Amino acid sequence: MNDTAKTPIRLLVHGASGRMGQALLRLARERDDVRVVAAYSRSQPAQRVKDEVPQFAAAELGGAPDFDVAVDFSLPDGFDPVLALCAARGKALVSGTTGLSSAQNAAINDAAAGIAVVWAANYSLGVAVLTELVRRAAAALPGWDCDVVEAHHTRKLDAPSGTALHLGAAVAIGRGSEPHYASLRAGDIVGEHTVQFAAPGERLELIHRASNRDIFARGALEAAARVAQQSPGRYGLAELMFPNL
Amino acid sequence: MNDTAKTPIRLLVHGASGRMGQALLRLARERDDVRVVAAYSRSQPAQRVKDEVPQFAAAELGGAPDFDVAVDFSLPDGFDPVLALCAARGKALVSGTTGLSSAQNAAINDAAAGIAVVWAANYSLGVAVLTELVRRAAAALPGWDCDVVEAHHTRKLDAPSGTALHLGAAVAIGRGSEPHYASLRAGDIVGEHTVQFAAPGERLELIHRASNRDIFARGALEAAARVAQQSPGRYGLAELMFPNL
Amino acid sequence: MNDTAKTPIRLLVHGASGRMGQALLRLARERDDVRVVAAYSRSQPAQRVKDEVPQFAAAELGGAPDFDVAVDFSLPDGFDPVLALCAARGKALVSGTTGLSSAQNAAINDAAAGIAVVWAANYSLGVAVLTELVRRAAAALPGWDCDVVEAHHTRKLDAPSGTALHLGAAVAIGRGSEPHYASLRAGDIVGEHTVQFAAPGERLELIHRASNRDIFARGALEAAARVAQQSPGRYGLAELMFPNL
Amino acid sequence: MNDTAKTPIRLLVHGASGRMGQALLRLARERDDVRVVAAYSRSQPAQRVKDEVPQFAAAELGGAPDFDVAVDFSLPDGFDPVLALCAARGKALVSGTTGLSSAQNAAINDAAAGIAVVWAANYSLGVAVLTELVRRAAAALPGWDCDVVEAHHTRKLDAPSGTALHLGAAVAIGRGSEPHYASLRAGDIVGEHTVQFAAPGERLELIHRASNRDIFARGALEAAARVAQQSPGRYGLAELMFPNL
Repeated sequence: MNDTAKTPIRLLVHGASGRMGQALLRLARERDDVRVVAAYSRSQPAQRVKDEVPQFAAAELGGAPDFDVAVDFSLPDGFDPVLALCAARGKALVSGTTGLSSAQNAAINDAAAGIAVVWAANYSLGVAVLTELVRRAAAALPGWDCDVVEAHHTRKLDAPSGTALHLGAAVAIGRGSEPHYASLRAGDIVGEHTVQFAAPGERLELIHRASNRDIFARGALEAAARVAQQSPGRYGLAELMFPNL
Repeated sequence: MNDTAKTPIRLLVHGASGRMGQALLRLARERDDVRVVAAYSRSQPAQRVKDEVPQFAAAELGGAPDFDVAVDFSLPDGFDPVLALCAARGKALVSGTTGLSSAQNAAINDAAAGIAVVWAANYSLGVAVLTELVRRAAAALPGWDCDVVEAHHTRKLDAPSGTALHLGAAVAIGRGSEPHYASLRAGDIVGEHTVQFAAPGERLELIHRASNRDIFARGALEAAARVAQQSPGRYGLAELMFPNL
Repeated sequence: MNDTAKTPIRLLVHGASGRMGQALLRLARERDDVRVVAAYSRSQPAQRVKDEVPQFAAAELGGAPDFDVAVDFSLPDGFDPVLALCAARGKALVSGTTGLSSAQNAAINDAAAGIAVVWAANYSLGVAVLTELVRRAAAALPGWDCDVVEAHHTRKLDAPSGTALHLGAAVAIGRGSEPHYASLRAGDIVGEHTVQFAAPGERLELIHRASNRDIFARGALEAAARVAQQSPGRYGLAELMFPNL
Repeated sequence: MNDTAKTPIRLLVHGASGRMGQALLRLARERDDVRVVAAYSRSQPAQRVKDEVPQFAAAELGGAPDFDVAVDFSLPDGFDPVLALCAARGKALVSGTTGLSSAQNAAINDAAAGIAVVWAANYSLGVAVLTELVRRAAAALPGWDCDVVEAHHTRKLDAPSGTALHLGAAVAIGRGSEPHYASLRAGDIVGEHTVQFAAPGERLELIHRASNRDIFARGALEAAARVAQQSPGRYGLAELMFPNL
């Protein structure tokens, strides 16, 4: 046995029938360093094997086979069992489930005393880098005007986007005041976020453009591969993936 | 005498002490094809000659020397005398005075039976071309989503900008429905206007960026040089400058 | 029978096994106004029916069933038979086959005396509109500097892209001189084209961004639906789709 | 005496007749925290006082009055005397003189043992921040494609711009490989630099747009005000102005 023939990290996917869950199963098959050992979803009527992955109903989560990291993109009312399972087994959790209550958020913090937990609303690695750059730029340029502009497809109802608000929070941490927001809804734009800093005579524009939703599942798989080696604690995506950024 | 040694077109500048008026006087000196023969402004206490241009109080407009085209960037309550002067003398008028009443607007139309009148809120040639392109694109792509985004300096209070509304009107003429607007106020941006058309899988972005206010005075001087040869009628800037666009 | 229950236009797809051919078959199924009655490809070993479409080897093209429009995205050495078939049957042709010889190009012009032929290198409707806007802007702004910048995925080997050269030709028609070109190859960018016109103090940027390759097949189907009602002649995409642009 | 009534920092301006020198003199008058006590230029025929600033010929530099910081935007063959003067008097130097030889560069490093020296090719604060962001992004995203695109006025002959190469060096430090460069020369663009990072499905674009040359003189004055309080050493602009970036 040698270094390059490492044992793949064993993933449990929770929320497997959703758009993110399906992308996770598909993209995990393209990687050597991870292997999905079980997939759970509410809509799964009975156990079966599909594409070599054992598929279970979410209600059977308690009897899950051995795994290294759980990856959860489910709904708030499905979140508690997967957190409890990870805490009980001492395994890491990567979650992108949005809409969690403050009690659930506190439960993550409690669990993080014993296991590594990553939670993020957006698993794009580019957005993680952008957020960190925005925080630094805002701190360096406190007197510059700041605007956050986002564009998404016309089916997106909330505005500004969660990611725009997250970028705005990074601005506020950096310089102590909120940016101005603008939102566009047009065509089938996957997601574009611009943070503009302006002063007399010059401007800095920091832009992320997503053109394919797969980046979110790819980022979550990167996070799962990375978190398996981390000490207990709660991590943001940038913190986990780019500790020296 | 030959074609290249043409007699310069004689300009009367009305509103000469304002930002546009000052730019007109300065930039006219750089051209061979126009010559300012008289400058009128409310703040001019008594006749004098400055930089070879005779300067008068606006109240003396009735006694103006011979001219070919009047260029007016004044205020609504100073507009009627300059229109009356042009109509009485049978000379063309180029005006960028904003905030005119509907009666004043109707008076322009009446005067245009006898003289050539150009009126535009924005004398940038680039914006004139953009407006025409936007009208055509909107007509060609009626089902595409349309957004107009504008950015200006922080001292600009009205939003959307007059130019953004003018572009939006071109969209509405083209496709029968209004675009969505977004406005940014940051730094000392002279003026940027983006008209975006979006459909599934593709986007068209038409952008004008102004970096120097002189473009507005330059466009007005171009309009003055052009309108001197026109038949009576009311012209928009694009119509006058780019009749084949 | 009423107006809305029109008989669908019958399409013959040539080059059906290529990326464009596959997209044409898939997207035609989503439309009521067209129906693929036969698909021909070099790689088809024997007749069969797939997704309700009869599939044939390209060699059998001569025995094609009745159709209204042939849509051809094949290779130069497969082009002559499909042009001959359309000419013989008096049916319209929509072709995006690139690399045609000057003799083949002349044959299109000859055939266009009897049938309607559309040929374009890029079937994006947005690019068709952009090309027309660029031609008009270049004619209106002859003294402005002009640059064409294009960005594509890293697997694209030719630079500038064919579409960039086509836009540059529209610039040259408009103002009599070629633009400057710049090319970027990065990530999996489907295709972005920017035409910038610059003068002192202002700029006009006309940008097309493609995010999904389906737009090319969609544009070709739109062209097929439209060309069925046209008189004989050779048409460009903009000319066919946006005659009043 | 209180904190707000600080004694202004005394500046010596070297290269005072150039474009940067003139902007430094003009913009220094707008600030309370700095005061120009002497201006030296090659073209100054004899001592005089202009706008309250004593003006001298560069040859008289040795007899300069007391100052706190020298600000030098001159030519390579005028650089040695100003460095020697600062070293002899134990005063800080801010220099933007380009084209220095490697011997002169080594002399800066030697002098930096005893005095604080800032040298930068571009004194825009926005570019300083951008450079630091680019270095961090390149280190975080080593596998992403990277392009540097710059646009400047048509009188600029060198390409890529010095600032583009400086940004490219930051990319190379971050990820170990050079980016690809593209240059546009159009209109009177003061300076625009885009660093694009691209991966499948997403892109990060970091853009700086300069619209007014005054930003360079303003940045140099900020650097002069800051460096007066620094320990000996050689500083880059970002390092000096944004030590925590």
